[in-house]
Amino acid sequence: MIRTHTAGSLREEHAGQKVTLAGWVARRRDHGGVVFIDLRDASGSAQVVFREEDHAHDLRAEYCVKVVGEVRLRPEGNENPELPTGKIEVVADTVEVLSESAPLPFPIEGNVGVSEEARLKYRYLDVRRQQVAHAMRVRSKATYLANEVMNELGFVYVETPTLTRSTPEGARDFLVPVRLQPGNWYALPQSPQLFKQLLQVAGLERYYQLAKCYRDEDLRADRQPEFTQIDVEMSFVDQEDVIQVGETLIARLWRELAGYEVPTPLPRMTYAEAMARYGSDKPDLRFGQELVEMTSYFAGTTFRVFQADYVGAVVMPGGASQTRKELDGWQEWARSRGAKGLAYVLVQEDGTLGGPVAKNLSEEELSGLAAKVGAAPGDAIFFAAGARNAARDLLGAARLEIGRRCGLIDESQWSFLWVVDAPMFEEDGEGGWTAVHHPFTGPKPEWADNFQDHPAEALAYAYDMVCNGMEIGGGSIRIHRAEMQQRVFDVLGISKEEAESKFGFLLEAFKYGPPPHGGIAYGWDRICMLLAGGESIRDVIAFPKTASGFDPLTGAPTPITAGQRKEAGVDAAPRKD
Amino acid sequence: MIRTHTAGSLREEHAGQKVTLAGWVARRRDHGGVVFIDLRDASGSAQVVFREEDHAHDLRAEYCVKVVGEVRLRPEGNENPELPTGKIEVVADTVEVLSESAPLPFPIEGNVGVSEEARLKYRYLDVRRQQVAHAMRVRSKATYLANEVMNELGFVYVETPTLTRSTPEGARDFLVPVRLQPGNWYALPQSPQLFKQLLQVAGLERYYQLAKCYRDEDLRADRQPEFTQIDVEMSFVDQEDVIQVGETLIARLWRELAGYEVPTPLPRMTYAEAMARYGSDKPDLRFGQELVEMTSYFAGTTFRVFQADYVGAVVMPGGASQTRKELDGWQEWARSRGAKGLAYVLVQEDGTLGGPVAKNLSEEELSGLAAKVGAAPGDAIFFAAGARNAARDLLGAARLEIGRRCGLIDESQWSFLWVVDAPMFEEDGEGGWTAVHHPFTGPKPEWADNFQDHPAEALAYAYDMVCNGMEIGGGSIRIHRAEMQQRVFDVLGISKEEAESKFGFLLEAFKYGPPPHGGIAYGWDRICMLLAGGESIRDVIAFPKTASGFDPLTGAPTPITAGQRKEAGVDAAPRKD
Repeated sequence: MIRTHTAGSLREEHAGQKVTLAGWVARRRDHGGVVFIDLRDASGSAQVVFREEDHAHDLRAEYCVKVVGEVRLRPEGNENPELPTGKIEVVADTVEVLSESAPLPFPIEGNVGVSEEARLKYRYLDVRRQQVAHAMRVRSKATYLANEVMNELGFVYVETPTLTRSTPEGARDFLVPVRLQPGNWYALPQSPQLFKQLLQVAGLERYYQLAKCYRDEDLRADRQPEFTQIDVEMSFVDQEDVIQVGETLIARLWRELAGYEVPTPLPRMTYAEAMARYGSDKPDLRFGQELVEMTSYFAGTTFRVFQADYVGAVVMPGGASQTRKELDGWQEWARSRGAKGLAYVLVQEDGTLGGPVAKNLSEEELSGLAAKVGAAPGDAIFFAAGARNAARDLLGAARLEIGRRCGLIDESQWSFLWVVDAPMFEEDGEGGWTAVHHPFTGPKPEWADNFQDHPAEALAYAYDMVCNGMEIGGGSIRIHRAEMQQRVFDVLGISKEEAESKFGFLLEAFKYGPPPHGGIAYGWDRICMLLAGGESIRDVIAFPKTASGFDPLTGAPTPITAGQRKEAGVDAAPRKD
Repeated sequence: MIRTHTAGSLREEHAGQKVTLAGWVARRRDHGGVVFIDLRDASGSAQVVFREEDHAHDLRAEYCVKVVGEVRLRPEGNENPELPTGKIEVVADTVEVLSESAPLPFPIEGNVGVSEEARLKYRYLDVRRQQVAHAMRVRSKATYLANEVMNELGFVYVETPTLTRSTPEGARDFLVPVRLQPGNWYALPQSPQLFKQLLQVAGLERYYQLAKCYRDEDLRADRQPEFTQIDVEMSFVDQEDVIQVGETLIARLWRELAGYEVPTPLPRMTYAEAMARYGSDKPDLRFGQELVEMTSYFAGTTFRVFQADYVGAVVMPGGASQTRKELDGWQEWARSRGAKGLAYVLVQEDGTLGGPVAKNLSEEELSGLAAKVGAAPGDAIFFAAGARNAARDLLGAARLEIGRRCGLIDESQWSFLWVVDAPMFEEDGEGGWTAVHHPFTGPKPEWADNFQDHPAEALAYAYDMVCNGMEIGGGSIRIHRAEMQQRVFDVLGISKEEAESKFGFLLEAFKYGPPPHGGIAYGWDRICMLLAGGESIRDVIAFPKTASGFDPLTGAPTPITAGQRKEAGVDAAPRKD
């Protein structure tokens, strides 16, 4: 090593020792003939004192330097109690510039706001900033811990292929032309789903992987074309076993990295209850403002808008005092989500109800309304009416928006739960059904024999882990019986030919004594973001891309040359057999 | 869990206990009214006894079953001391078939040879076989251990992007069209080289990753288009620091997984010595048969073939008794490696020298020859003459072939060493120079100032770890000074424009106080293969591809539809800015 000590490790007991440090010039202060420099390295920083003849005047911010000097106690009154190294300083004998730094595009030290574009373009400077480096280290610690926990639990770490065949998981695949087989393409996996199930057929029983996954999705905030999941699959288990492993993992991560004791077993809520009370399959339980179903309340209403399959409400505390502009803003907000608008009633301070909707309601409807929804004078009541799912979605989103705008969310709180018993199927809008999870998700035991007769009601043997309103993991007990899988395909309208061409190899594998199995996948970027206190998964990705998949640092993606195109076989026709 | 116990965990102390097992029917033996079945699960196997009325006659090989029964000691004389569960058996009360198995394409039990094609197509059955499952588990343990070691050594685990920009590392990149930026393509990384260097500029100091890498190479035995490396980079270090980390990692892996105490510090050999003595930069030291340089011995020869820049020899013990066909076979072998042939002299039992070459040598040359090369009566002496590197390559390959054919290699032995001081550059055959490692490899300190004036002699600050004749790791101290990097580019004939377009972002990063740094990457598949006692890296890859990149299991790669092609933007012209 070029150094004898790390800067951040120096303490009083080093006083009198000759040390060699190496790191970066963080801050510099000139005091009449003496120059003070904070020397930063990965361990922290230490103050280095130069007399003028040491030529410290050559040292600029972020120069990489090697300093030889003696540790001494700081003169009394000059200690800095906020720094672990605040009682000492290093009096430099010699300094060597290991490399210079050009003027910086943004300052490394201090809490200066920097545009995300600049941060990503100069990510190697951004990561020198304390908070960003901290996030990288938290992720690293989380990774080590996850490996430790899964090792202790007896899981076999298996790397599955990333150059593979298109799998049917909803999103688009990224494709890769194959030079050695021109006209043929690999797909990058959306997840190792089929491989981890094959590993169960293979008898490994407990599989685990930190898996890179790829989804070619349209622009969405906080999505990355590549992301990481903690991927788990187990044989001879039921839901309880998978849940227990997940709670062990999560509890350990939060205990060691967030200093929080996750209360296990975690609460569970059915999908139906989550949708009814929170309008979401990933409810944020850190605040109230639950949805109130008003369908029967308005069963006899003459107000056309509320003559609907479902009417629900959510209360905004203090919302009656919003300006006209703010109330119009809600309409805009609702329309941007694909709704027609967001009906509202304002509960005035004197208890009377105002707003355009109130005029359309009967005296009777008005009189019990505030009490029914739990609104107090000064509150606003938002309504959604229409198809049950869409209306609840809207109210659930309004609830979150209310939570944010009214500061109802205690950001210091952790709220974990499992959402279980999701439906197996949902209508595809074209008279058919699609799988809510994926087509290999099994039915709950009580639906095993007749899910095909009641696709709208049948429940999946599935479970999602939710934290603070985010889904951080999701999984299910899988189908391992061919005849049951066939019934699912039948409901989904997947023909034998289509099933054969898409995942025939999995169906073939299931002919050879597949064990009952199930698993889960955790969104590792999200979990690390929560642990690091980040606001975006980009905060815990070393080199993230923008929403359009652009990397401002490397300039990827780039055009390719005609030569590359030819060589890669992009335009070759597949060989006919 | 469906079971109460794993089969392999049952011992005498379980006798009398009621247990539920779940696993696969491994072997079945019928003994007049009683059926014995070996029930296999991931933990091992246990014997289960069925009375005929238990309907055990329905159970076929590889059925997945659940058995409830009572553990009892086997009747005296029926114990199997070779099985950990050999003292007990489970008397079945009930058996439930969890899933049936179709007739198997090959038997799971027993050491039956199976074609690799069948093994890969039914990989999920292949992995049920003991040896294959063992290899998967060894790899998993190695992965956990590597993480543990690197964590203890303070390395920060960072995931680097796999959808990125083409990097210049010798092989071809796999390319990925980008739908959201039609006409632009990502490249899959050949290694995280540039990113790990950027992470040093970022100040993380100790980086580590289990990294998936991609190289679109031509068909070569035992290559995979995707492979894994243990990727390491460190700041403020010199060669000794990187070597020490590597030895710590390797020693721990071999101690815990191979029961072998790696003697550290490992021996080191210079590249020059390795080439001179073994004709290889990754010498297998498990046997002798070193190359003997004969250039000066034949300095005055009249034999045209030996009038060369370099003449060398290697001895094949007992090789004089080879048949004419075998000796011709060596010529064939040499030609298949691009040589003209392999000259040889046979030392007869009476000490006279035979073979066609002997006729061309003078009495004097013949008389001292056997002694000079260390050949005994009955041996063959092979020669190569010509350009030094090519001739040594040929002799080095002949040496390995001799080792194999003559059974000289002690397969139970481990031979680790570092090969250091490789040349920085080699001639590119077109009058220029290419980098032996990569263009970011630094010169040894003594060549720092003048490597550009002596490109043929300059030594790189590089080190390769070799085990049993295989390179299992390679790295270097990198260049961190812009002016030195420029001199390397100048030697390599890389123009400023080319450098800018290929890795301008790295050069830009190096303007901002880059630290001195270096690192190494270990071939994880090879290391796991060695630890698992495999013969091919395919033995330790869960779902490997064939040499042409085909996956017999999934059928990947496949043609894509016109719709996929259009949607992925394969044929779009890049937008002009």
